[in-house]
Amino acid sequence: LGQTVGIAVVGLGYWGPNLLRNFAETPGARVVAGCDARAELLERQRARYPAIRFVSRYEELLTDPEVDAIALATPAATHEAMAEAALRAGKHVLVEKPIATSSAGARRLIEAARVVSRVLMVGHTFEYNPAVLRLREVVQGASFGRPVYAYTTRVNLGQIRDDVNAMWNLAPHDISILLFLFGEPPVAVSANGKAFVRPQQEDVVFVYLEFPSGAVAHVHVSWLDPSKVRRVTVVGERQMAVYDDLDAEAKLRIYDKGVDQQVIPHEGGLYDYALRLRAGDIVCPQIPWKEPLLLECAHFVECVSRGERPRTDGENGLRVTRVLEAAQESLRAQGRRVSV
Amino acid sequence: LGQTVGIAVVGLGYWGPNLLRNFAETPGARVVAGCDARAELLERQRARYPAIRFVSRYEELLTDPEVDAIALATPAATHEAMAEAALRAGKHVLVEKPIATSSAGARRLIEAARVVSRVLMVGHTFEYNPAVLRLREVVQGASFGRPVYAYTTRVNLGQIRDDVNAMWNLAPHDISILLFLFGEPPVAVSANGKAFVRPQQEDVVFVYLEFPSGAVAHVHVSWLDPSKVRRVTVVGERQMAVYDDLDAEAKLRIYDKGVDQQVIPHEGGLYDYALRLRAGDIVCPQIPWKEPLLLECAHFVECVSRGERPRTDGENGLRVTRVLEAAQESLRAQGRRVSV
Amino acid sequence: LGQTVGIAVVGLGYWGPNLLRNFAETPGARVVAGCDARAELLERQRARYPAIRFVSRYEELLTDPEVDAIALATPAATHEAMAEAALRAGKHVLVEKPIATSSAGARRLIEAARVVSRVLMVGHTFEYNPAVLRLREVVQGASFGRPVYAYTTRVNLGQIRDDVNAMWNLAPHDISILLFLFGEPPVAVSANGKAFVRPQQEDVVFVYLEFPSGAVAHVHVSWLDPSKVRRVTVVGERQMAVYDDLDAEAKLRIYDKGVDQQVIPHEGGLYDYALRLRAGDIVCPQIPWKEPLLLECAHFVECVSRGERPRTDGENGLRVTRVLEAAQESLRAQGRRVSV
Amino acid sequence: LGQTVGIAVVGLGYWGPNLLRNFAETPGARVVAGCDARAELLERQRARYPAIRFVSRYEELLTDPEVDAIALATPAATHEAMAEAALRAGKHVLVEKPIATSSAGARRLIEAARVVSRVLMVGHTFEYNPAVLRLREVVQGASFGRPVYAYTTRVNLGQIRDDVNAMWNLAPHDISILLFLFGEPPVAVSANGKAFVRPQQEDVVFVYLEFPSGAVAHVHVSWLDPSKVRRVTVVGERQMAVYDDLDAEAKLRIYDKGVDQQVIPHEGGLYDYALRLRAGDIVCPQIPWKEPLLLECAHFVECVSRGERPRTDGENGLRVTRVLEAAQESLRAQGRRVSV
Repeated sequence: LGQTVGIAVVGLGYWGPNLLRNFAETPGARVVAGCDARAELLERQRARYPAIRFVSRYEELLTDPEVDAIALATPAATHEAMAEAALRAGKHVLVEKPIATSSAGARRLIEAARVVSRVLMVGHTFEYNPAVLRLREVVQGASFGRPVYAYTTRVNLGQIRDDVNAMWNLAPHDISILLFLFGEPPVAVSANGKAFVRPQQEDVVFVYLEFPSGAVAHVHVSWLDPSKVRRVTVVGERQMAVYDDLDAEAKLRIYDKGVDQQVIPHEGGLYDYALRLRAGDIVCPQIPWKEPLLLECAHFVECVSRGERPRTDGENGLRVTRVLEAAQESLRAQGRRVSV
Repeated sequence: LGQTVGIAVVGLGYWGPNLLRNFAETPGARVVAGCDARAELLERQRARYPAIRFVSRYEELLTDPEVDAIALATPAATHEAMAEAALRAGKHVLVEKPIATSSAGARRLIEAARVVSRVLMVGHTFEYNPAVLRLREVVQGASFGRPVYAYTTRVNLGQIRDDVNAMWNLAPHDISILLFLFGEPPVAVSANGKAFVRPQQEDVVFVYLEFPSGAVAHVHVSWLDPSKVRRVTVVGERQMAVYDDLDAEAKLRIYDKGVDQQVIPHEGGLYDYALRLRAGDIVCPQIPWKEPLLLECAHFVECVSRGERPRTDGENGLRVTRVLEAAQESLRAQGRRVSV
Repeated sequence: LGQTVGIAVVGLGYWGPNLLRNFAETPGARVVAGCDARAELLERQRARYPAIRFVSRYEELLTDPEVDAIALATPAATHEAMAEAALRAGKHVLVEKPIATSSAGARRLIEAARVVSRVLMVGHTFEYNPAVLRLREVVQGASFGRPVYAYTTRVNLGQIRDDVNAMWNLAPHDISILLFLFGEPPVAVSANGKAFVRPQQEDVVFVYLEFPSGAVAHVHVSWLDPSKVRRVTVVGERQMAVYDDLDAEAKLRIYDKGVDQQVIPHEGGLYDYALRLRAGDIVCPQIPWKEPLLLECAHFVECVSRGERPRTDGENGLRVTRVLEAAQESLRAQGRRVSV
Repeated sequence: LGQTVGIAVVGLGYWGPNLLRNFAETPGARVVAGCDARAELLERQRARYPAIRFVSRYEELLTDPEVDAIALATPAATHEAMAEAALRAGKHVLVEKPIATSSAGARRLIEAARVVSRVLMVGHTFEYNPAVLRLREVVQGASFGRPVYAYTTRVNLGQIRDDVNAMWNLAPHDISILLFLFGEPPVAVSANGKAFVRPQQEDVVFVYLEFPSGAVAHVHVSWLDPSKVRRVTVVGERQMAVYDDLDAEAKLRIYDKGVDQQVIPHEGGLYDYALRLRAGDIVCPQIPWKEPLLLECAHFVECVSRGERPRTDGENGLRVTRVLEAAQESLRAQGRRVSV
């Protein structure tokens, strides 16, 4: 037991219980505590996990020697302060996305983790998703050709957060995926959006990203949409790929691209002339499935045990935050292009 | 027979044959001529319509007394000059979208039509589409609530035009639909996009539109996409609607919107709080189907016969062109907001 | 605590853990024990539920005074003997479908339950499914018209059981649904099928059912199918309904039916004449969702607490078993019609 | 022109106009006449094809020396008499499915064609469908394994014929496809169905077929269904394939099949044990598309020109008719197995 990592999960609303369940099944981990200020949420989890201690005050965890690591599933606005307190108390930290609500905040966390030599990891779950890992292999493979263009749609009718707008709530996933696929951060972004339900909190946001390679991407997030969509499309020079998280049968589709050159002479510019593209074969690879959050939890525990740097480390979290920050600035400037 | 409207169809590549077929079935119309510079296209239509005269020189039509009206399905760049010549020759004109490639051009055509008292109509087919007409009824109906947000997707892997970019080729439909639904033109647009296949000709374009009412909209067009999508989503205060042109069973879906206020106390700003929205019933109205192009042709012939102003008149075409023009300016300025 | 019902779950392979999880959340219930002969399965559940006692011998449960009720998720062939032993030991019993592998067995269980005055319930989960309950309201409602015809498809590529064929494994659900919807058992059945993977164990079965009202139904089950389908279609005189368990957005669709009488004169029997039907509006009612198994567990606990007869009692289980038994006889007789 | 085949199309209701249109585009063919007893149908086609002669009396065609071949799109019950008259008059004949409403009738037509040395072809369109041809290649290929099981669904809400029941109207297509895929006729069939709209005319029919190889198949046809489905599923020992005629993006899907043997010890027969199958990769081959009816028309004209035997000759039509006849006998005998 001396070898296992003692975990405390903080924030037991929507996402925290998923962390509880997955850390409970992670080899090498032991969930020792859960924390939330809301008594009824503590009660609900106590009934499920009688062996776990549930507390209402965060400070108790910081001084608890059984707690080696803290997983934060609290509102975005609290991430920086709570993660910093945990690191200063010598705890390893897994913080939900976004790592912080400003790049300055993300940098402070990176520095705090460096000082105490603790693991700082951000919960960019999709970078642990087997379908996204396979998508990256496809996109970076030789037969795909250079990726030229990607777009993501993450919309549904659901919870409207009051701490952040739809972009800060939903787009961290998409930006993390895009950076993971393209292997580089964007150089500039442009964003537009609109607040309907509450003042100043955009419910619908569109972000356009330009990458150094010349590729571009577009992110559409909304929590005011009739249908739930979770989709990423990547177009390469020779192939295209669609990752649809909600397609039970074929999460990933890879399209060959054919080109038919229609050699219709172009007389005097007056009549139509076309280069015709057509889809070729479609392949939907079978992807051995594991719950991404379980893989994420296992990676965190491994990094803590071995003193290694996680794949989604503080720098990764910072890169995503910088994009969001630039996009927020563009939002305020009505779509003006902002360098990252 | 003296009463029928003599029609000439110009441009027999992709769209022109559809005009031929539909005018041939339009009561009150008689197709008297077809025109294209490409001999093999003339030959192909001659075999289908032995009773129609096919010519290679446009000028012949302008002096032909049997030709009352000219339908132009030629490349966008030619619309202005060819339509103006037809009007000056005293012919009524139906011109495919966009009416012209500049608002100045559109204005010249409106003026030319006014001077000769001839009908000038633009082929915004979707304004004759029974599903779009029904969608407008829904969106403008009392139970929908104020429309707050719409987005359209018109992408596929297909013909790449060399005369215009994907926006001028595809987005006229979406902009015409949005103006038709909202009943007002936008005040400002912001557009981003990228040219991959040919220099300077964007293959992928995203346009954000702001309307005087406070509603916003987004248009995504691309001819480099693995799948064909033709979809319009409109979100209102109380209902939402999706028009999917490719859904054979349910082209139009109307979603009721429910709101569950989760009154979880918000203690110290630390924990999550949410307003939860959920979809209610979905209704897919049965829409008696007629081919939109046939309805468009019939409307044109009626307006010519009765000397009436068409629903998609020159002013309508001008409004769409102004939006495209502003979006093109924004494209060049990397997404800067441009007033319409 | 004296009031809560002490539950033991037997069989911890595929389905048993779902019973564990749901009884753990059922008010008025307390899971006191789990049982399976396989040590590694006991171990896995022990880790999840440290407060529950896990044993390998079924007999221990029968004499345990803390165990008020036993939930059996063991193979079909064991249901009769194990349920009977439990009833004789004075335990209430919830047995997974099918209640027994013969109608004689089902009758013995009914009698055993009667003698000891204990609750006997069969796990026909779909009769607790909110979508199926709503479907029954629709089908039995005035605007549906008399139901004339139904068919169900329950196919996928999955576990191949070695204790029963695909019909005894999968079709109990469909037959339970059909009897629930039509409110009467069938008078006769006809079944065809084929064993490919193992001798004598049909992997693919088609069952045709005739009901006293004149309605008919068809059941298609298979565990050798490329795609997972869980669908029930009911056609009534004036409406039709489809319940698709895998459609996240619209589990239930209700179709109005229109009739267009094409009055094309029928000359000498030589030429075509048609009555044309067409779909009308489609409505997808929003169905407040609860996990059916949780509702089933709650119903069982309620019946045990109040001494009431469950909706899916032994008689219900017997009716389904009689249909399966007749279908099995028809299977052996190559599709011959067999009275139920 | 002496070389072209003069075609007359008889029956201008639903299907005949498609034959007109396709023969008009078939090289080597010339449509010389159309025939129907209904004046308004003749009028409608006359407007479209001013160069074709339209007549109301079938007999006129039989003596017309310009008519080399007759294509019959009349009701099924008329096929035998009208085709026989045409053959006796020395005309080549293309007759819509089913070739006749009895096997005796089909045999008489084969004999009549033999006597006059004329081509007799049946319009089993799907045997000319590029997707079905590709499906046959897949099913008969080495990596598919022996085909073990197929099922087809051809249902919709549509025209209800009064000359034949839904089986004779719709199932000829499915039976023709199944025989084409399996390369052998079935040895026995079993059928059940029910008439709701009109007495004695089944609207819904299920047919089970057994093939000499041990493979089985199932056909579900109905014209009382809320949704239109046109689908064929074939399961082989190593692969599976689905042909969905209405899937615009992927008409054909080929599924690899994996097997996971779960070696869970089987203790005393009490607990569950499973052989688990899972889907592997899915491939949707790009199939160059041509309208099947055009390919069928071209094949007919080629066979007439070269004096060759068509792929869907009278014997092919007879084989399908024999299956339908046996199925009809089984229908009357309430599902009793009937040898073919």
